[in-house]
Amino acid sequence: MTTSGGELMERESIRSRPFPVPEYLERLARVQEAMARSDLSALVVADPANLYYLTGYNAWSFYMPQCLVVPVRGEPHLFMREMDAQGAHYTAYLPVEQIHGYPEDLVHRPDRHPFDWIGRQAVELGVLEDTPSARVGVETDAPYFSVRSHLALRAQLASAELVDSHELVNWVRVVKSPLEQDKLRVAGEIAQNVMRIALEHVEPGRRQCDVVAQIQYAQALGARKLGGDYPAIVPMLPTGETAGTPHLTWSDLPLRPGEATTVELAGVYHRYHVPLARTVSLGPPPAELRRCADAVTEGLRAALEELRPGSTGHRVQAAFADAVGRHGYVKGSRVGYSIGVGYPPDWGERTISLRSGDLTRLQRGMAFHVILGMWMEGWGYELSEPVLVGTGPDGAVERLAPLPQDLVVKD
Amino acid sequence: MTTSGGELMERESIRSRPFPVPEYLERLARVQEAMARSDLSALVVADPANLYYLTGYNAWSFYMPQCLVVPVRGEPHLFMREMDAQGAHYTAYLPVEQIHGYPEDLVHRPDRHPFDWIGRQAVELGVLEDTPSARVGVETDAPYFSVRSHLALRAQLASAELVDSHELVNWVRVVKSPLEQDKLRVAGEIAQNVMRIALEHVEPGRRQCDVVAQIQYAQALGARKLGGDYPAIVPMLPTGETAGTPHLTWSDLPLRPGEATTVELAGVYHRYHVPLARTVSLGPPPAELRRCADAVTEGLRAALEELRPGSTGHRVQAAFADAVGRHGYVKGSRVGYSIGVGYPPDWGERTISLRSGDLTRLQRGMAFHVILGMWMEGWGYELSEPVLVGTGPDGAVERLAPLPQDLVVKD
Repeated sequence: MTTSGGELMERESIRSRPFPVPEYLERLARVQEAMARSDLSALVVADPANLYYLTGYNAWSFYMPQCLVVPVRGEPHLFMREMDAQGAHYTAYLPVEQIHGYPEDLVHRPDRHPFDWIGRQAVELGVLEDTPSARVGVETDAPYFSVRSHLALRAQLASAELVDSHELVNWVRVVKSPLEQDKLRVAGEIAQNVMRIALEHVEPGRRQCDVVAQIQYAQALGARKLGGDYPAIVPMLPTGETAGTPHLTWSDLPLRPGEATTVELAGVYHRYHVPLARTVSLGPPPAELRRCADAVTEGLRAALEELRPGSTGHRVQAAFADAVGRHGYVKGSRVGYSIGVGYPPDWGERTISLRSGDLTRLQRGMAFHVILGMWMEGWGYELSEPVLVGTGPDGAVERLAPLPQDLVVKD
Repeated sequence: MTTSGGELMERESIRSRPFPVPEYLERLARVQEAMARSDLSALVVADPANLYYLTGYNAWSFYMPQCLVVPVRGEPHLFMREMDAQGAHYTAYLPVEQIHGYPEDLVHRPDRHPFDWIGRQAVELGVLEDTPSARVGVETDAPYFSVRSHLALRAQLASAELVDSHELVNWVRVVKSPLEQDKLRVAGEIAQNVMRIALEHVEPGRRQCDVVAQIQYAQALGARKLGGDYPAIVPMLPTGETAGTPHLTWSDLPLRPGEATTVELAGVYHRYHVPLARTVSLGPPPAELRRCADAVTEGLRAALEELRPGSTGHRVQAAFADAVGRHGYVKGSRVGYSIGVGYPPDWGERTISLRSGDLTRLQRGMAFHVILGMWMEGWGYELSEPVLVGTGPDGAVERLAPLPQDLVVKD
């Protein structure tokens, strides 16, 4: 069945690559095939999740311009700040000849930019072709490929056309390999541990930041002997009146008796994320919250039942909407999204959404965070379920963090 | 003298605005003055640190397109995803009429983009003028203003010109108000607490992730009764051979006797960051590391001596270079940068660097992280000093986290 975390640890050195080199080569081949189908001569990959996926490169260096240039045929090359390039081979499988560092004096200058250098070098190396027929894909919606990076790169290319990659690498990532599924299982165990600890510490009078301290401690500790990695999003715990707004972080005010707190966090292992959300009521919940929670639990079951190979996000959303609609609830936003490798600021993959109109066929090995947030005027409810598609019994979902699916009530 | 943290807590509700409204109005006025000088008719602010600085808006919503549109005269307007707009007034001082939510169906679509909507609305509201003489500043190097956002906004403007803002708001942020200085003092106390705990837990045989767990716990706990906020960068602790590369995060491998670990972390209070770095040797350090550490301590003292109102980053770097040069060391990268409000992925302000050629006149109330990283082949040394300029005795620096400035040796 599944590989245990213990075995995983035995067979890999974690400071080095979390996957064997053939897995990276297979990923590269799939990306290059997709590039050929999209008629791209090269692809400039800047999203740190895509860099990690394709090479294993992993460091907090994405606040400076960096990228992997993938030609449609041949070897990819990494470009980054010199001080980072020096140690990139500790995590990236690429030989040092394919890792290039730009000089320090390009950092934060109004008159020149690292992508001037990167563009020139890539053309010289031949990984970027600068001819009228060359079409170079760029990740126009990736968080760390700035407008200036884009303009500088374009200025370096006399003839080639820059085109939108349309999340090409992200789409290759949606079906998880068996080894990736194992990473998600470990992350799921961590998420469960962390959520249990969070629920234990949400108590009247405790400061929000004290609960977060416990959560962050548990996130790094991990599960069994496997250490946890940092989450792409910090723990979120909107509470009381502010639980009606989803992305508030925390303060040092105490939690109050009689109020509800929504807790959203992730377990992370080797950058693979399993997010998880629950709601805790400190004291008997108002009838309205209880009624909402019951409807959402029913809706979740209906959604999971529909989340199968061959189905679509559209149908999953419809199943949820029907179930909660019978109780008079409507949810305007999507009910989930694809998950896997994540870096700040987001643990979603920016590909498949579980929502009306998304007709992508679901496949075995995809992973989703089914997240049901009901954000009302002055209160809110959240319940979520991270799952693998099709790896459960009879093609059902495999729950990655199987905790009870109810409102948590503490008296 | 300085306001104590206790008083700070008394006079503000932390879930709401950490600064009184007149301070926001003063900041807005300074930004609009700078815009007038740069001949900008409007400015589209996307950097979350700039949003927070100008309005107090604070949530983990920056992974979706959002911005503040500031006209050169008149009121600014916030634009964000509908679910976030709903609760933005919990943190932003703006009246709800100046907060606008874009519909959920614009999220992650290949064929439409939130900035189509934002551009149209802003023109309709009159905060963006779309005339041939209009010059609209955009933050082309901000982390969360994507290329697609830029292209979508440009497509909405028939006549107005989009121009680079050249970090206009970041430059307004460089001199800290008395209230901001107080935030930094609290953050400095947190940083000291956290570093003490980190140094205590760096022990042979402890896993790197266990040390991080302690650091993250202490970061959220804060100092005295003031809770800590999340750092823009996770704790970094390159160790042993990998200490020669600066931005590696952690693994679950144990720390080894005889090896050195560099620890870089921040204390954060109300988004104000005080970063801090130290190096620990587990056992007697090699002569080479000791020699380097002594030279760097001498260099740090020389740099701090030069870090005064009226001086420049150029001179600070030269003072350091001279001091370590006498011992045969050369450091290629800058020796520090301006700090203040931070959001992932960076706690630097992207303005003043302490380096050769930076001739910005230093002023009282500026804040810097003087960071001396010596990244060698197979080993490294880091020492840092976060400071306020000119608020110490006789115009000297005020050290925000005054720990001993030496290599930490544990036997």
